[in-house]
Amino acid sequence: MKRSEIAEQPCPVGRAAAQLVDAWTFVILRELFLGNRRFEGLRLHSGMSPRSLSLRLARLVDEGILEKVPCRDTPAVHEYRLTEKGLELWPVLVTLRQWGERWGGPWRRGGVPMKLMHRGRGHALRAQMVCAECGEPVDARSSEVLSEPGALQQRAAFAAAVAAATSRRAR
Amino acid sequence: MKRSEIAEQPCPVGRAAAQLVDAWTFVILRELFLGNRRFEGLRLHSGMSPRSLSLRLARLVDEGILEKVPCRDTPAVHEYRLTEKGLELWPVLVTLRQWGERWGGPWRRGGVPMKLMHRGRGHALRAQMVCAECGEPVDARSSEVLSEPGALQQRAAFAAAVAAATSRRAR
Repeated sequence: MKRSEIAEQPCPVGRAAAQLVDAWTFVILRELFLGNRRFEGLRLHSGMSPRSLSLRLARLVDEGILEKVPCRDTPAVHEYRLTEKGLELWPVLVTLRQWGERWGGPWRRGGVPMKLMHRGRGHALRAQMVCAECGEPVDARSSEVLSEPGALQQRAAFAAAVAAATSRRAR
Repeated sequence: MKRSEIAEQPCPVGRAAAQLVDAWTFVILRELFLGNRRFEGLRLHSGMSPRSLSLRLARLVDEGILEKVPCRDTPAVHEYRLTEKGLELWPVLVTLRQWGERWGGPWRRGGVPMKLMHRGRGHALRAQMVCAECGEPVDARSSEVLSEPGALQQRAAFAAAVAAATSRRAR
């Protein structure tokens, strides 16, 4: 199976991951959330090659996560802005960041060099996940999966197709 | 710059992304959170080649995200279990899933085939992010970055090193 086929599976994790793909994409998104929006700034602060950066920016524009627009002050220069779809990746970046803070160390004393603050509130922003229905904090142990009628059959059919393809190749 | 160097930057987003890397990794994590823990089951439900699956599982074990242990019922067979570090990726998977639900469509009528439920509560689990300090819902517009003394210099030094490397190559 090709990586692009992940985007066809009826699974939101697979489809979302297929739109984002790799570590560089997260670095680009990080820079955009920091307000670093021009090609040259993105190149210098990511350390990516121009070709690699161009390809990934084009892909993010294609996916509708970014838009390429003339700068307000110098219209001859373009910048990349997060669309609404892109801005809604913020929870993914923040949960990834918090996981990286906890598991990506060692850090220098004082922790990571850039802190996230709750804008206008004067305190640090540590995001917590709660259930939108009852407000309780939630983690891996709070969830269970409910399969719609048909979902398990669909899963079984997918696995059977993979198994059949394997045995064809083995013959 | 090589992709592996992302893991050296003093940024938790970069370091976290460098530990996860690609779409397949998210598919493997999805399957493990669903309780699908054996190599053969992971192969059939991901559609990955055995080689590609082995490489990624080995990497996730190396990173301490999974552990490979004998099955309780048949100790001759091994299974992969999420460690505490792995279980703490749940918020990343859930935010990615919710983004995929919203932006990865079209879905068949009724939405995605597998629903997340709040275990023992009888209602769906939609995770919401709130500020751990004040309890307010937070999104991209609620945050701002506070740089420690030294963080901006560090950022500028990184960009200067990239610029210097570029001009050396151009000569």
